[in-house]
Amino acid sequence: MTGFFLTFEGGEGAGKSTQTRLLAERLRQQGHRVVVTREPGGAPGAEALREFLLFSGHELSLRAEIFAMFAARADHVDTLIRPALERGDIVLCDRFTDSTEAYQAWGRGEANPDMLRLVNALQDQIGRSPDLTLMLEVPREVALERLAARGGRTDRFEASTEAFHERVRRGFGDIGRRNPHRCVSIDATGAPDVVAEAVFATVAGALASRRV
Amino acid sequence: MTGFFLTFEGGEGAGKSTQTRLLAERLRQQGHRVVVTREPGGAPGAEALREFLLFSGHELSLRAEIFAMFAARADHVDTLIRPALERGDIVLCDRFTDSTEAYQAWGRGEANPDMLRLVNALQDQIGRSPDLTLMLEVPREVALERLAARGGRTDRFEASTEAFHERVRRGFGDIGRRNPHRCVSIDATGAPDVVAEAVFATVAGALASRRV
Repeated sequence: MTGFFLTFEGGEGAGKSTQTRLLAERLRQQGHRVVVTREPGGAPGAEALREFLLFSGHELSLRAEIFAMFAARADHVDTLIRPALERGDIVLCDRFTDSTEAYQAWGRGEANPDMLRLVNALQDQIGRSPDLTLMLEVPREVALERLAARGGRTDRFEASTEAFHERVRRGFGDIGRRNPHRCVSIDATGAPDVVAEAVFATVAGALASRRV
Repeated sequence: MTGFFLTFEGGEGAGKSTQTRLLAERLRQQGHRVVVTREPGGAPGAEALREFLLFSGHELSLRAEIFAMFAARADHVDTLIRPALERGDIVLCDRFTDSTEAYQAWGRGEANPDMLRLVNALQDQIGRSPDLTLMLEVPREVALERLAARGGRTDRFEASTEAFHERVRRGFGDIGRRNPHRCVSIDATGAPDVVAEAVFATVAGALASRRV
């Protein structure tokens, strides 16, 4: 694969969707071909699985939920991400495997080592990791204000307890520390255009060093 | 786990459900505690995933379908099979991982080596294989007569081409040859009570040798 695979990670309300959109616009203005997508979902079969996982109310064991997140991811990689990277496109994805590690293994699983190992074993089977991961960080009170302003339906993760969200936050921190070669933390507390500047500076540097 | 885990495998119309029921009755008459279940499904979350996979009409990539079958399997093992085996029960399961290998990797995947490796890698993560697998074998014309007599709604696998079912049949044959320690072929062409005798003789021998 010759393209560039960039993921945005972080809790709800960090501004991932907005920053994904702003970055795509700027990269396209520079002449890049950009594909914007999200997880869970991103392809028709994967979106149907997303609906099942986030909104159907069916309870799965934690291991099963992790396998199911990777089922959606396999569909997404096979039908959208890999073909785009093989064409040489830049793929911007709102969440990827790091979210499974943070939400399922840290949030639901309370950092159970078996679940952390399972996420990593299944990611090995997926076979494609991001070239760059931007971890958008905001204080929880800012995230809650943004979520309240957004409205709309609440998925099962947004409806979880504060202790859950604190574990997710620590999970993202752990992932960032263990993967310094691809993970960059971005302070996402400011206005969208301010954050977008920091995002773009990081991405421009990464693209230049890879000569895409 | 101290129980005994027995799976029935084979194409549609081989009589797996009937033989599972007859074997359960006979084992219970002998004083065994028996749990009867099936895949895909077997637990509430897994049954919901079964419905999604077999009847929703959503297309997933082959890899995604394999991951999703294992998502249902993880739920089934975690919520029903493992607890039953830990209590020391005999678990009779209509289909398990061999069906994923036969239907997805051989049938849909045409024995693609990457898909065969994926099935085996995911089974390693599941972590529990059957103690005994009975492979019920009938000529395809007998199976088709039985399916016609059964009626009811047709799932996406039953509705596949004859070439697909021939690949599935070869897949089961390959699995049996590679796993002679646990797989036993049973000629399931005869009347249910005749087949049940052959099934029971095999199971009684396996249980005696394991002193369950």
